[in-house]
Amino acid sequence: MSLLVVGTVAFDAIETPFGKTDKIVGGAASYISLAASYFTRDIDLVSVIGDDFPESFLNTLKKEGVKLDGLQIKKGEKSFFWSGKYHNDLNTRDTLDTQLNVLENFDPIVPESAKNCDFLMLGNLVPMVQQKVITQMKKRPKLIVLDTMNFWMDVALEDLKKTITMIDVLTINDSEARQLSGEYSLVKAAQKILAMGPSVLVIKKGEHGALLFNKEEVFFAPALPLEEVFDPTGAGDSFAGGFIGYLAKTKDISFENMKRAIIFGSAMASFTVERFGTERLIGLSQKDVDERVQEFIDLVQFDISLV
Amino acid sequence: MSLLVVGTVAFDAIETPFGKTDKIVGGAASYISLAASYFTRDIDLVSVIGDDFPESFLNTLKKEGVKLDGLQIKKGEKSFFWSGKYHNDLNTRDTLDTQLNVLENFDPIVPESAKNCDFLMLGNLVPMVQQKVITQMKKRPKLIVLDTMNFWMDVALEDLKKTITMIDVLTINDSEARQLSGEYSLVKAAQKILAMGPSVLVIKKGEHGALLFNKEEVFFAPALPLEEVFDPTGAGDSFAGGFIGYLAKTKDISFENMKRAIIFGSAMASFTVERFGTERLIGLSQKDVDERVQEFIDLVQFDISLV
Repeated sequence: MSLLVVGTVAFDAIETPFGKTDKIVGGAASYISLAASYFTRDIDLVSVIGDDFPESFLNTLKKEGVKLDGLQIKKGEKSFFWSGKYHNDLNTRDTLDTQLNVLENFDPIVPESAKNCDFLMLGNLVPMVQQKVITQMKKRPKLIVLDTMNFWMDVALEDLKKTITMIDVLTINDSEARQLSGEYSLVKAAQKILAMGPSVLVIKKGEHGALLFNKEEVFFAPALPLEEVFDPTGAGDSFAGGFIGYLAKTKDISFENMKRAIIFGSAMASFTVERFGTERLIGLSQKDVDERVQEFIDLVQFDISLV
Repeated sequence: MSLLVVGTVAFDAIETPFGKTDKIVGGAASYISLAASYFTRDIDLVSVIGDDFPESFLNTLKKEGVKLDGLQIKKGEKSFFWSGKYHNDLNTRDTLDTQLNVLENFDPIVPESAKNCDFLMLGNLVPMVQQKVITQMKKRPKLIVLDTMNFWMDVALEDLKKTITMIDVLTINDSEARQLSGEYSLVKAAQKILAMGPSVLVIKKGEHGALLFNKEEVFFAPALPLEEVFDPTGAGDSFAGGFIGYLAKTKDISFENMKRAIIFGSAMASFTVERFGTERLIGLSQKDVDERVQEFIDLVQFDISLV
């Protein structure tokens, strides 16, 4: 089923304990689209870049089934740029530089063809921009997933709260869940956040896996213990892309199927962190993805029969 | 099958964000024995206390099938005492007071009847004391599990390294695994530690679950997301007690059965943290334990068929 992805397409410069990069391609929507493209080829992208962006990456997206009619290219302007340095534990990072550039006045315009999309993935952006996308839809998508971050809880909390009343699935990390709810226990945090609007909450815990909540149930998926985590940038977005891509492919938004989607999302994230940037997400085979998912099955599978 | 538990039986005074206690009963061997008693009633305890220890707790142990022939009671001396305060996140704590008392000259003496035990659980103690227990065995136990902590890596590393060449399963937490191996990646850390002697390594990650490694395989068990974590003291020991208790009950030390044992251990730990001290581990029914294990099954169970 058709998927609309909204978010940044941008440049990153990244430093990890294992090396550093010059400007490379990044941005939430880049990771989301690439990860989702392993599950569905019916993807529309809404984003904005400057005229400094490499044609080659846009061609890669097109080759993977991502339509770019909603990608605004601003002549004479520069693409969004973020630079960061990860600490030794790779769980924390410092932002070294943020240049909003084209993002400063981003006014998302959803192409006519995408206004009837079945699945809508709103990557991390100004909450009002995310909302503006929702209100352009001709029919309510079957599922709206929204990712956000602590920054918007600090500077635009009311807008964010309004926006999450309009969606189905919210994805945030554990400290953001605690901040948004004011509860330390993630179980209590989840129930408070679900009372704010979304029917499903995904709490991302990085190397510690992810939790999926609805009002009655909870599911936990681990992250794969990896020999080398090279660059965590984009892991959460790849996770979201795999998650919504799998749901769009299977056309089933039940909690049981979301469990499977979480595993496929975790698999896509586990690829991303093995290299800098989007590199590892390009050119994987179906067999690569299936083998990775099998590793997740082997990791958590046990057989207990209670009498 | 018969289980020998060695470790501290002691007093704790605990402060958490939810309250504080006066001196209450604690100690690694108290938690281990109580947790194991839900799986086997053939338990011997080797430990030392002063004559200040409450008879009522010793009676509780006896009632749960724990033989106290190896428990030394030192007349006119005081039991080991530890006092600590947990930070708001419950993952870190400050030690406020440590009084070794009877522990200072602890010379473990294994009763004749326990020298042929099938399962040996060595709770956290001076590595040379743990070693002294192993060398008193008449026959090599079917399985020796050893728990230790960063303190011994700081002050008695060579003794510890020698001791872990004599055991089968080592249980430590994630930062200790990193310290002992010098590797940040837990996958690499596990392989280095397994090369030091143990055939199985359990890495405890507290609220983030536990990893089980042998040289070829890895298994992950989550911790149960709880509404209230009241007091984390004894969680790791309850986990170890449930783990070895289940193995002793089932007489099966295969990796597949260790996966099940990890789940039962995690279930016992999830009870412990719901109250101060050992309180929650006393008087659970088989149904309570089974229902808790079912929660773990529900938490991680998913059904993916890869074509």
